[in-house]
Amino acid sequence: MEDIKKRMLSKIRTVPDFPQKGILFYDISTLLLDPEGLQDALNELEKGLARSEFDLLAGIESRGFIFGAALADRLGKGFVLIRKEGKLPGLTHKYTYGLEYGEDTIEICDGAVREGSKIALVDDLLATGGTARAAARLIEKCGGAVVHIQFLIELSELNGCKQLEGYSVSSVIKI
Amino acid sequence: MEDIKKRMLSKIRTVPDFPQKGILFYDISTLLLDPEGLQDALNELEKGLARSEFDLLAGIESRGFIFGAALADRLGKGFVLIRKEGKLPGLTHKYTYGLEYGEDTIEICDGAVREGSKIALVDDLLATGGTARAAARLIEKCGGAVVHIQFLIELSELNGCKQLEGYSVSSVIKI
Repeated sequence: MEDIKKRMLSKIRTVPDFPQKGILFYDISTLLLDPEGLQDALNELEKGLARSEFDLLAGIESRGFIFGAALADRLGKGFVLIRKEGKLPGLTHKYTYGLEYGEDTIEICDGAVREGSKIALVDDLLATGGTARAAARLIEKCGGAVVHIQFLIELSELNGCKQLEGYSVSSVIKI
Repeated sequence: MEDIKKRMLSKIRTVPDFPQKGILFYDISTLLLDPEGLQDALNELEKGLARSEFDLLAGIESRGFIFGAALADRLGKGFVLIRKEGKLPGLTHKYTYGLEYGEDTIEICDGAVREGSKIALVDDLLATGGTARAAARLIEKCGGAVVHIQFLIELSELNGCKQLEGYSVSSVIKI
């Protein structure tokens, strides 16, 4: 692993048994607190996005907003909010997907993604890939094309890539 | 109002009766979608923060993450997450505050705000001021000092400033 990635990883705290027993949580809040950590993360995410051409960046509530909006600022793009159900006003497009227990629904405002728009999706963590897949499907349901999905951290053993087959996907740090 | 602020306001959609009947919701998602809109908002927020000296920027989940992290990036600062209860791992500091109906609790990770840290707080909207006040109190409970609170939009008739008496507060657009 490159030095810059090792430096980032050293600033990401791990917390056992969160949000539930048996899960080792990778906590990026300690990385964000460190000015160099935040810059490193954004620099590396920006490199991952550099190979794609797109009109808009999309981020998934709520940690996806952190990197998504800062990258949209750096790249001079607009930013699309993908939110949990009930948070966005007016008409929305919805997508419901299965979780390990139960299901979840995410939304995009009607009109945010236009027919034929090219969208890059950013999130902090690729675990099982269910949420990212749902976000990609929702963008497509709105008529957009998902040209790239960029993560900061990928937990390789959970094989989330498999859920995202057919998409261009990259991760800064694979664990 | 200056032209740049009029231009921003023209991109902020209003949605009646959201999240509940009788409330006119100022929807910044339409501003964020527009690359110029996002840049305008961040430029003006950055100007508002320029008069203060601080160590860290703090943002309140989840719309506060959008501007907060992008501004931390621009200013080379670290970013502190203030989240709703149960979202942050490990030990946290909590603050519970009253809402119109019921109450809410926000949290900061233990160790994120050090004794004597100077913190600037950023959020999209100053309405009644209850959440921002709670966030400021929580930062103080952790030992930090709130040197400035910066909003994009202030709904003047709700008199949220009153809740924030004693703090340095500014808003880009007063409505």
